[in-house]
Amino acid sequence: MYVIIAYDVNVARVNRVKKFLRKHLNWVQNSVFEGELTKADFEEVKLGLNEIIDREEDMVVFYILRSEKALKKEVLGFD
Amino acid sequence: MYVIIAYDVNVARVNRVKKFLRKHLNWVQNSVFEGELTKADFEEVKLGLNEIIDREEDMVVFYILRSEKALKKEVLGFD
Repeated sequence: MYVIIAYDVNVARVNRVKKFLRKHLNWVQNSVFEGELTKADFEEVKLGLNEIIDREEDMVVFYILRSEKALKKEVLGFD
Repeated sequence: MYVIIAYDVNVARVNRVKKFLRKHLNWVQNSVFEGELTKADFEEVKLGLNEIIDREEDMVVFYILRSEKALKKEVLGFD
């Protein structure tokens, strides 16, 4: 599966989230990562994030696609 | 088409970006919007953002899908 993860996390925890996600996915921009994951890896990512974040203050959204091919990506900026 | 937009924009311009995107899409979280757009609307959104952002300092990523159905969405947090 192909997963895009965007997070809105308190500054107190944001570096831990970033460090954790960097092990599993590719960095896209501040607070967005994406990449191909197995189902097991995806469960591990969700469990890991669940341990780091404060569910009352933070929010993570996962967009899950069958394949990267279902997706077109365009970028504006950082020229 | 269904579009997810994530931006990494200097604080000097972030409110203008937010205000502009709110007219066209649904807010998901800090710096992420998504929604159904016609091709013409999508072009308008790109043109509008291009006018607001500084392409050397800011970055916007667009994920474009044929339909929202190609996407599964999960959310963690903000309980």
